[in-house]
Amino acid sequence: MKPLFALMILTLATLVTGCQSMGMTEQATLRGTGDLGLVVERAAGSVLVIDHSEHEILGRVTGLGDLSHASVVYSRDARYGYVFGRDGGLTKVDLLTQTIDKRVIQSGNSIGGAISQDGEYVAVSNYEPGGVNVFDSDTLELVMEIPAEYTNAEGQPAQSKTVGLVDAPGNRFVFSLFDANEIWTVDMLTSPPEVSRFDAGKAPYDGLITPDGRYYIAGLFGEDGLSMLDLWQPEQGVTTILPGYGKGEKRLPVYKMPHLEGWAIADGTAFVPAVGHHQVLVADMESWELVDRIPVHGQPVFVMASPDSRQIWVSFAHPRNDVIQVLDSRTHEIIRTLEPGKSVLHMEFTPRGEEVWVSARDSNRITVYNTRTLEKVATLDAKSPSGIFFTNRAHALGL
Amino acid sequence: MKPLFALMILTLATLVTGCQSMGMTEQATLRGTGDLGLVVERAAGSVLVIDHSEHEILGRVTGLGDLSHASVVYSRDARYGYVFGRDGGLTKVDLLTQTIDKRVIQSGNSIGGAISQDGEYVAVSNYEPGGVNVFDSDTLELVMEIPAEYTNAEGQPAQSKTVGLVDAPGNRFVFSLFDANEIWTVDMLTSPPEVSRFDAGKAPYDGLITPDGRYYIAGLFGEDGLSMLDLWQPEQGVTTILPGYGKGEKRLPVYKMPHLEGWAIADGTAFVPAVGHHQVLVADMESWELVDRIPVHGQPVFVMASPDSRQIWVSFAHPRNDVIQVLDSRTHEIIRTLEPGKSVLHMEFTPRGEEVWVSARDSNRITVYNTRTLEKVATLDAKSPSGIFFTNRAHALGL
Repeated sequence: MKPLFALMILTLATLVTGCQSMGMTEQATLRGTGDLGLVVERAAGSVLVIDHSEHEILGRVTGLGDLSHASVVYSRDARYGYVFGRDGGLTKVDLLTQTIDKRVIQSGNSIGGAISQDGEYVAVSNYEPGGVNVFDSDTLELVMEIPAEYTNAEGQPAQSKTVGLVDAPGNRFVFSLFDANEIWTVDMLTSPPEVSRFDAGKAPYDGLITPDGRYYIAGLFGEDGLSMLDLWQPEQGVTTILPGYGKGEKRLPVYKMPHLEGWAIADGTAFVPAVGHHQVLVADMESWELVDRIPVHGQPVFVMASPDSRQIWVSFAHPRNDVIQVLDSRTHEIIRTLEPGKSVLHMEFTPRGEEVWVSARDSNRITVYNTRTLEKVATLDAKSPSGIFFTNRAHALGL
Repeated sequence: MKPLFALMILTLATLVTGCQSMGMTEQATLRGTGDLGLVVERAAGSVLVIDHSEHEILGRVTGLGDLSHASVVYSRDARYGYVFGRDGGLTKVDLLTQTIDKRVIQSGNSIGGAISQDGEYVAVSNYEPGGVNVFDSDTLELVMEIPAEYTNAEGQPAQSKTVGLVDAPGNRFVFSLFDANEIWTVDMLTSPPEVSRFDAGKAPYDGLITPDGRYYIAGLFGEDGLSMLDLWQPEQGVTTILPGYGKGEKRLPVYKMPHLEGWAIADGTAFVPAVGHHQVLVADMESWELVDRIPVHGQPVFVMASPDSRQIWVSFAHPRNDVIQVLDSRTHEIIRTLEPGKSVLHMEFTPRGEEVWVSARDSNRITVYNTRTLEKVATLDAKSPSGIFFTNRAHALGL
């Protein structure tokens, strides 16, 4: 019987390999994808696949190109992350197998993207040559080019840089045209997709959509205030909110214009990084009046509300970027100042908010805190980590 | 070489079976779990595992006992559903393999449950013998019994029926004691878990927690109004809101006291089923004053906001339960009356709200609508379907 036994072992080995090619390696066991996420390793051009239940790194996926300012959205089954690189690269990462499923270089220079409400389309916002490209989320085939054409100061047709691209309810995309001072909506339910244009303020440099998908707000580089479009009543056009926001706020050198994804929208109140001040601004979202200015450690970059809106976590601009401050959303008091490491770049709450992950680029470290005790519960090694993105974003409008 | 070839085929067959036992059957391929869900088939004691991207039934899991009023919560990895049966059964269903992972009969008669913020604990609310049982979410081993003891009208110690059990931020559970007129919170971060008691109104019969986890509201069977506890300031105790709500509302025979999970909380406004009226009540959540009464088709049971808060979908009590009405949340107008089938029991929006699934028990049918066009996009056969629960609930407080 010996030869037969040996043959079976050999066959077993072959078939185990067969199983592996179906994705049954150690890293690709059958598992839920609700507690997974990606951490961007900017300098290395790689992403870590993490499990936030176990505080565990499941694998590293390399070869994603230039990941400065990289961001991630997720497929509606929460299996695939779409990573938007700075070099125009769009990479679809399979979190279960920890491999690149597909990758395209879709422009010379891009800045973020979005996935449609129905999960069918992935759109990317481009600086070079401008415009927005829309892809099939399954195949990454190009579905549509939106050149974002306008007439420039010389009266010539040109393509605008696009920024602040988000998804909106009704299967729409919304974005701003930096060079054309406009906000556009694209309706992916009509065929061909219908584009609507709205005049906005000067030089929109970023945008956000409120968590319910109703208000689109663009930050302005060319003037004070922000441009807001009510997507429930777009026929009313764009209005200006927080008229003093921007240059009028400047007193200190501005190290970084705050990203608008660094706004916390909690319970009818917006907590907003002041431009060039060591302050978090608090605005009532009904009247858009400033109701408070909270003095903080440095110039805020990310101001993020915990999922229960109970805490506001704030990160800061260089050179005061080695701490995080936690504010009470009701009393506006600083509850705690934490030191997660050097050059804190991003934070991500677990879906129900019991923990938060914080990246410290120059300490090559992720620190996980319990949001109730504010104690450290885990640290993980990462190469110059920047953005952290969990898969529950698959289920949230505008993320 | 023929015998060798035959042997290899045989071995292949054996090993494919080996793979199957690892979960590699046709129904258990490697896949994301973000777009899965369970549909309760009440009469059959079974649940359907569905894929809401493909409008597809992946499998049926049988043997879950009495599923009247059954509800479901999900593990934090969105792989397992915990099904709370009426007969005290607690069943952990694996959505990837479409099998029962574990099942316990934990009491004689139960009514719903919750999973803790950190995903470690599953709690079940019991009528017989009363109290709450807490289980390890992985093993379903009993971790803790909370007997819900009180002194009854005869001065004797007794156990109360418990209702309205939800999870709250800070890893707490909150529930109401029907017999003891109290609301209790249980802190699962302290050891042993600390119980706090609050006086409530008479005979709380159900409860809800607002989506941010701040306010716990109990409906009252024994008096008008509702009891509300602000979990941010529990030391202030319970206050009464909507003082006319309940018996004072009754004009028609009441076919069903509305479940409180049938409240829509949208943008600072609560849309609430009137008791015994063909009306949806609209209350401002700051003042808790009634701001409108919307006349509708019948006595509302479920009043649910779409994820973008743009629409309010309403189902109705017997005998007017063959339609759904869709209201505009801004204008309060009825936009559309739909007829999904006989005895409409439940609705569930897809996570980003582009579609909604509606169960019609006596038509043995699920109908899927596009929320923008309000057109039917799919129908699925099911045996007397009742509750529909999608896995993105894993990531939402109080669900």
